[in-house]
Amino acid sequence: MPFPPTPALTADCVVFDQAGRVLLIRRGNEPFKGQYALPGGFVDIGERVEDGARRELREETGIEVGDLNLIGVYSDPDRDPRGHTCSVAYFARVDHADPVAGDDAAAAEWVDDWRTHKLAFDHARILADAERRREDS
Amino acid sequence: MPFPPTPALTADCVVFDQAGRVLLIRRGNEPFKGQYALPGGFVDIGERVEDGARRELREETGIEVGDLNLIGVYSDPDRDPRGHTCSVAYFARVDHADPVAGDDAAAAEWVDDWRTHKLAFDHARILADAERRREDS
Repeated sequence: MPFPPTPALTADCVVFDQAGRVLLIRRGNEPFKGQYALPGGFVDIGERVEDGARRELREETGIEVGDLNLIGVYSDPDRDPRGHTCSVAYFARVDHADPVAGDDAAAAEWVDDWRTHKLAFDHARILADAERRREDS
Repeated sequence: MPFPPTPALTADCVVFDQAGRVLLIRRGNEPFKGQYALPGGFVDIGERVEDGARRELREETGIEVGDLNLIGVYSDPDRDPRGHTCSVAYFARVDHADPVAGDDAAAAEWVDDWRTHKLAFDHARILADAERRREDS
């Protein structure tokens, strides 16, 4: 590709259930190994960002969602200790579904006390923004 | 960087003036050389997307803006004939400012009949989305 180097592009999903729980994974790899995180990962070349978000969600949790709503774009150069990434974050709702951990996720579960956990990366900020957007919508 | 290859990250700006005109550039380079386009370009590693949007706007038009409002994320793999790019688009308002073309821009001007022009890339779609967002806000 003839393009200059740019931050690596990732997509993350905030999925709420009807009880207000959030679908989180336990990271299987460094950085933040073992910590709760939003399902997500790197967008492939040739893949729309929304499709990357759905693919990562499916691979890590087995869950499929309907509409994806844009929360925001998170590109602080220090957000990932490995290097500069830019995450596009979406929220979605599901009635109920049982997650099955896969790919980079050591576990995948509905978490009700997510505010009390230390989340990987800037995912606490993304979740707080998602909650505000959910209340507005 | 230890990251897999991802789409190249760009930022574009829709700037409206009080008369509803839009700040457009004439592209100085291929692709779409000579066509109207939104000011924008590639985000540098180490730079937040919003900062990249402001830098490209300043370099191409000489104009500084206040708040940037997220319009959306545009990542169709075919949106750029050179390869897969993902653009984060913002809108902003300025009271009045005289643009000065620079960098990749052969010209920079306020355009009132922008709906009648064929714009580069998917910029017509971005502009239509921006107009809806501007009416909502």
